[in-house]
Amino acid sequence: MILAKVVGHVVATQKCDELRGSNLLMITALDDDQQPLKDKTYVAVDSVGAGINDIVLAEAYFALNKDRYKAMSVVAIVEKVFRDR
Amino acid sequence: MILAKVVGHVVATQKCDELRGSNLLMITALDDDQQPLKDKTYVAVDSVGAGINDIVLAEAYFALNKDRYKAMSVVAIVEKVFRDR
Amino acid sequence: MILAKVVGHVVATQKCDELRGSNLLMITALDDDQQPLKDKTYVAVDSVGAGINDIVLAEAYFALNKDRYKAMSVVAIVEKVFRDR
Amino acid sequence: MILAKVVGHVVATQKCDELRGSNLLMITALDDDQQPLKDKTYVAVDSVGAGINDIVLAEAYFALNKDRYKAMSVVAIVEKVFRDR
Amino acid sequence: MILAKVVGHVVATQKCDELRGSNLLMITALDDDQQPLKDKTYVAVDSVGAGINDIVLAEAYFALNKDRYKAMSVVAIVEKVFRDR
Repeated sequence: MILAKVVGHVVATQKCDELRGSNLLMITALDDDQQPLKDKTYVAVDSVGAGINDIVLAEAYFALNKDRYKAMSVVAIVEKVFRDR
Repeated sequence: MILAKVVGHVVATQKCDELRGSNLLMITALDDDQQPLKDKTYVAVDSVGAGINDIVLAEAYFALNKDRYKAMSVVAIVEKVFRDR
Repeated sequence: MILAKVVGHVVATQKCDELRGSNLLMITALDDDQQPLKDKTYVAVDSVGAGINDIVLAEAYFALNKDRYKAMSVVAIVEKVFRDR
Repeated sequence: MILAKVVGHVVATQKCDELRGSNLLMITALDDDQQPLKDKTYVAVDSVGAGINDIVLAEAYFALNKDRYKAMSVVAIVEKVFRDR
Repeated sequence: MILAKVVGHVVATQKCDELRGSNLLMITALDDDQQPLKDKTYVAVDSVGAGINDIVLAEAYFALNKDRYKAMSVVAIVEKVFRDR
């Protein structure tokens, strides 16, 4: 999983059945100082109710459950990062 | 998932059974200003009827459904990108 | 799998059901001299009881078991690295 | 999937059961001008009868079928690339 | 799959059940001249009896079989590389 910041969202009417009803968030991966990295922005399915500017955990390979699809997902909203330097 | 632009297509007669009947689109990943990135062009199976110059969402690991194959796919046509800077 | 160092952890109350009860470790990938690499920090589910500053093995695609989810995981604590130069 | 060129092959007697009988092709990913990229050479299982200098589509995550293994595979021989610039 | 060279091994007592009994090899990806690449060293489960300095094929996403785990694995020992330049 990566730490990322929610920077926007995407509107798409024509989409796979599997994505219907999903919130599509734009998220940018963060560097070691928790600043957004250049050209490291992805679109992820929201599964936790994240909003703009939230710091989140995103997983590219997360199977929401065995019976559903896999797509890059926001899997947690991060409250605090404890980092030892 | 990544934001990408449809930049062309590929013709391939000799291919895996799993790819028969699929439209093979060339897509180029976009940078933070939504310009095509150098040498970041992929070929993806179209599953939403995308056309040249469309902005799309592509997923490398998308299982169209449990009973079919996995291959990089175009999974949505993007109408609008809302990005907070 | 990659060699990485545990550099911190993350607190997240709002998260996927699949992550409930999991310890979320921040790990930084190591270079050839076993020093942390810049901007190569990930968040991984702990499955072996790793602690701060431990050298660990992490696997991005590890299915803990067939009946559970896949998420980047710390899968071993490394005691010794034998490297031929 | 990526566009790549077949640049050689690999001989390996001692290998996984799953790879027995497979043709192991060396393929190099192509840049935007369809020239081979430096240090982007992979080994892929041939599933379409590709030969030296062929332009092919390769998929890292292609499950040949549900009942068999996954390994990077050559999944199509490309006849023509239509690219809009 | 990538071409890599076995450069060492790792000792880990505390590890996932799925890794018990596995030989954990350090492997470094090779460049176009078959020299080790900087900071491209991984740890892979040996499944073919590879030893130090062997040139091997490694697959990050190889499912050893349907009923077992997935982890980066050494899947073949390479005897000869035929490369057209």
